[in-house]
Amino acid sequence: MASAEASSIAPTPLLKDELDIVIPTIRNLDFLEMWRPFFQPYHLIIVQDGDPSKVIKVPEGFDYELYNRNDINRILGPKASCISFKDSACRCFGYMVSKKKYIYTIDDDCFVAKDPSGKSINALEQHIKNLLCPSTPHFFNTLYDPYREGADFVRGYPFSLREGAKTAVSHGLWLNIPDYDAPTQLVKPRERNTRYVDMVLTIPKGTLFPMCGMNLAFDRELIGPAMYFGLMGDGQPIGRYDDMWAGWCVKVICDHLGLGVKTGLPYIWHSKASNPFVNLKKEYKGIFWQEEIIPFFQSAVLPKECTSVQQCYLELSKQVKEKLSKVDPYFDKLADAMVTWIDAWDELNAEGASAKLSNGKA
Amino acid sequence: MASAEASSIAPTPLLKDELDIVIPTIRNLDFLEMWRPFFQPYHLIIVQDGDPSKVIKVPEGFDYELYNRNDINRILGPKASCISFKDSACRCFGYMVSKKKYIYTIDDDCFVAKDPSGKSINALEQHIKNLLCPSTPHFFNTLYDPYREGADFVRGYPFSLREGAKTAVSHGLWLNIPDYDAPTQLVKPRERNTRYVDMVLTIPKGTLFPMCGMNLAFDRELIGPAMYFGLMGDGQPIGRYDDMWAGWCVKVICDHLGLGVKTGLPYIWHSKASNPFVNLKKEYKGIFWQEEIIPFFQSAVLPKECTSVQQCYLELSKQVKEKLSKVDPYFDKLADAMVTWIDAWDELNAEGASAKLSNGKA
Repeated sequence: MASAEASSIAPTPLLKDELDIVIPTIRNLDFLEMWRPFFQPYHLIIVQDGDPSKVIKVPEGFDYELYNRNDINRILGPKASCISFKDSACRCFGYMVSKKKYIYTIDDDCFVAKDPSGKSINALEQHIKNLLCPSTPHFFNTLYDPYREGADFVRGYPFSLREGAKTAVSHGLWLNIPDYDAPTQLVKPRERNTRYVDMVLTIPKGTLFPMCGMNLAFDRELIGPAMYFGLMGDGQPIGRYDDMWAGWCVKVICDHLGLGVKTGLPYIWHSKASNPFVNLKKEYKGIFWQEEIIPFFQSAVLPKECTSVQQCYLELSKQVKEKLSKVDPYFDKLADAMVTWIDAWDELNAEGASAKLSNGKA
Repeated sequence: MASAEASSIAPTPLLKDELDIVIPTIRNLDFLEMWRPFFQPYHLIIVQDGDPSKVIKVPEGFDYELYNRNDINRILGPKASCISFKDSACRCFGYMVSKKKYIYTIDDDCFVAKDPSGKSINALEQHIKNLLCPSTPHFFNTLYDPYREGADFVRGYPFSLREGAKTAVSHGLWLNIPDYDAPTQLVKPRERNTRYVDMVLTIPKGTLFPMCGMNLAFDRELIGPAMYFGLMGDGQPIGRYDDMWAGWCVKVICDHLGLGVKTGLPYIWHSKASNPFVNLKKEYKGIFWQEEIIPFFQSAVLPKECTSVQQCYLELSKQVKEKLSKVDPYFDKLADAMVTWIDAWDELNAEGASAKLSNGKA
């Protein structure tokens, strides 16, 4: 009775037992303190991107599990080759080991933003709202999310489409430092994003978008196996395209399976710009490769027989091998890693697979 | 020198000699007074939708021309059959007789809105900004209009697409009374749109949207001949689908010709809801017809040989006749009217055609 009373005073956070927060390393000690009021009720999965001998300090009171490279190697064995090293792309290992329905992933330089009224934004709560209400990928609604309070479908919106589609992804945005590429960072070093756009919208079917992994939530059951962040960082010719790669694959598969992708609210406060010179070195191949990758994804067609995310993803890996290997041998390796990723995902997510995991997972 | 000095104090409004404002009848005497600071520098074209013997009072100081049904019949002869009677769809006659590059059209129940800081919104100026800067129909930018001050293309946006496409249409929104269909009006009689979303975005290629004619600007040279508001009102089985019809045709043709359509800012204040019972009577056929019309437009393909708006529009009219006549004989008539509209447009817009017009047009 006492606990029921307590929970009526402090309501249980939404989806408390159905969502994991995945964080790639935590270099910034303020990060978790700042998010404590919002994150503490949830379970954290921290995936350390670099030297396993370094110790990550997690403040008291958080429920978490931590994986470093040694853990990844032990758990995945040879399949660990599909997980990036010394790059935040390693976070996707956290998606794989989670047993929850929903994932929220955030970078450690992202802090709590304030809305125009000065109130702290509970980013996680907004993501959950986005994921729990439908999307509208098949026709554009000019008042944006029609399911939001105070909005609806406008005149001329077909009634047969008003049930909407299931929402697989919620892509949040950033105040302060915008997510620019190195050339734009170099050209506009002082630009800050100060515009709070009070809006969530569904990215229409057939349209690709640049998915940023800084402030991102998704439904693991609906789209998890497509959320692979590729091969970046140590030993790879490219960086900073991990989330982009995932976004292209995810969007093509969501379009094929009739799932929705939302973007807009919530905002986080992106505290510091990464070094544009370092970024340029990581990005420069991606900058010209993307000129071929994007048309590839724009024209990719998945056969009707592909009805699961895994089937879609394996089919995409074949098409990557066939059509992008001519751009660079890297894509041949990436296509193989996509297959390895699915193998590893299925292994860890099979019935009774949890015995493979340690770090206190049930 | 004096006039140069004067203009440096009161700057010339943007595109003063290149834009006409088209208004379908003015029942509300306050309407032009409220808009005077913004509209007075521009030329108005008023198209009277009903009884030609009724006199429309235009306040002193406005430069305008007025057309009633008798004028339309005299100017177009038998081709006047393509212009709706007793319906605001007649406004498209104004698009046809204009000789300017840009059109802004607005309903007489739309007033000046205020932005969140309490400042009156110059809707026309924002439309002009939208039309004068490019669109991004081929890839979605998560910070919305990348050409706006304080924004840019985000990481992962292909550099080859950053020049953008020419903008053909700027679709503005409404605070207060939202543009809902009759069923939604009936179900939510008290709903008001109070959310000011500070954003303009390009509707992606391949995505249709419900285009509302209440607060709409476009580039006549780029898309004018597709801005036909169909057959509505007197003698027709349907109403309130004039702007929707134009929007579907315009979007398909813009996509084919590589032109952009923007939506979002500016807002106007929509002062009163039209009668939902009257609206239901006008709309009910449209409500089920649109379930077939929208898939028709979503799958419409225009051949490469169609390189002008007129060619595209005539091709669409053929496809309408072929594929929608089975929905209702109305579409057979509408397809013919689409051809008549193009004939009339070309006649009035041919070299030296201005002699056919009176009402003080040069």
